[in-house]
Amino acid sequence: MTGTLYGVGLGPGATDLLTLRAARLIESATVIAYPTLAGGDSFARSIAADLIPATAREIIMDVPMSTERGPAQAAYDNGAVEIAAALDAGEDVICLCEGDPLFYGSFMYIHARLKERYTVEIVPGVTSVTACAARAALPLAARNERLTILPGPLPEDALTDEISRADSVVIMKVGRHLAKIRRVLETLGLQNQAVYIERASLPKEVCLPLAQAPEKAPYFSMILLTKGADPWL
Amino acid sequence: MTGTLYGVGLGPGATDLLTLRAARLIESATVIAYPTLAGGDSFARSIAADLIPATAREIIMDVPMSTERGPAQAAYDNGAVEIAAALDAGEDVICLCEGDPLFYGSFMYIHARLKERYTVEIVPGVTSVTACAARAALPLAARNERLTILPGPLPEDALTDEISRADSVVIMKVGRHLAKIRRVLETLGLQNQAVYIERASLPKEVCLPLAQAPEKAPYFSMILLTKGADPWL
Repeated sequence: MTGTLYGVGLGPGATDLLTLRAARLIESATVIAYPTLAGGDSFARSIAADLIPATAREIIMDVPMSTERGPAQAAYDNGAVEIAAALDAGEDVICLCEGDPLFYGSFMYIHARLKERYTVEIVPGVTSVTACAARAALPLAARNERLTILPGPLPEDALTDEISRADSVVIMKVGRHLAKIRRVLETLGLQNQAVYIERASLPKEVCLPLAQAPEKAPYFSMILLTKGADPWL
Repeated sequence: MTGTLYGVGLGPGATDLLTLRAARLIESATVIAYPTLAGGDSFARSIAADLIPATAREIIMDVPMSTERGPAQAAYDNGAVEIAAALDAGEDVICLCEGDPLFYGSFMYIHARLKERYTVEIVPGVTSVTACAARAALPLAARNERLTILPGPLPEDALTDEISRADSVVIMKVGRHLAKIRRVLETLGLQNQAVYIERASLPKEVCLPLAQAPEKAPYFSMILLTKGADPWL
């Protein structure tokens, strides 16, 4: 009997925004797996840390800092081999994923490598999108409104085009793209409707009108733009 | 001391996809509030049922079946008055919300009525979007892909325009709009890439290629369309 691969969403960062299902799976884990970036700490592991049994074996996929895909591919290739060996030995493997496993998450790379050969169960998680909306107390979408989710690294003209046509907008992965995004929103006259949020649900979270946002944004920052959604009915 | 209004996301339906925070708040609730539709059962209440203390007082907002806004507005007006009275008496009120409170949820109507006068805390929840993706084991978005979330009631030409330009698409509230959505996807030649999901995470969940979907869809059904996202890196 081979084991089951679980892709487990951990939510945006607060330790009590895990689901009951995620918590139970982690508490009974014998093997967990997660990525780290260039030898740093794992954000995913930090969210689940209090629940991980001391006896659990940990498979660490260290992804080097590089804009080239090859080194990251190799890290996921190696991780997949190690995870597959545990599954072949009949062990379940709990893959820890910040947010949701299928929403801009690295679990997708492990899933793509192993889904044909193993039973996979995915546990959805609270995304940073709804965590940021909760922090800002801003409705994301009501009734027949559309919601557009855009990665900050998109080119300036693509962002301008998308935002100009959208109802509600979430811009993810703001980080070093903050200045570009500010320019886009100023061009569209929307800068005063934008809210900047970083590290939603964590102790050092920040939620400010975009005009008051810092010059430098961390990778885990987001901009919400609701262009006049009327939640009054 | 007035009480705090909590808007608590309950996730897509499975009782173990609540967050730990939501579960703790509900277990210690003295007053809970939730909407029902035309005297029917409350889906939100059913998700949380096992956690609701027998001693909790329940404020029910019964929303009549109507396409006009007036009767629904009146139901939320009355609910807000009843919730405000509890808050004024110093009681916290836990407002139960299927999915996430700020994502196509009726909590937004209560929030709009009470946010200026009371302390509000919003607990984000797992949305049906990621629950459906988890059930279908389909990546929603990776790297610099955009994700477009569309309500099924949008007009046919608007859906066609949005979908033709999108990377990944989620169509919510499919229900009686299924035939129209099928036509749109056939026009765009995308019908074979679409997946139909109803009641994700519930015992009677359905997940099928759109071509095999039933003729009639319930309100809580969704179509996922990933146009070739490559999660391999």
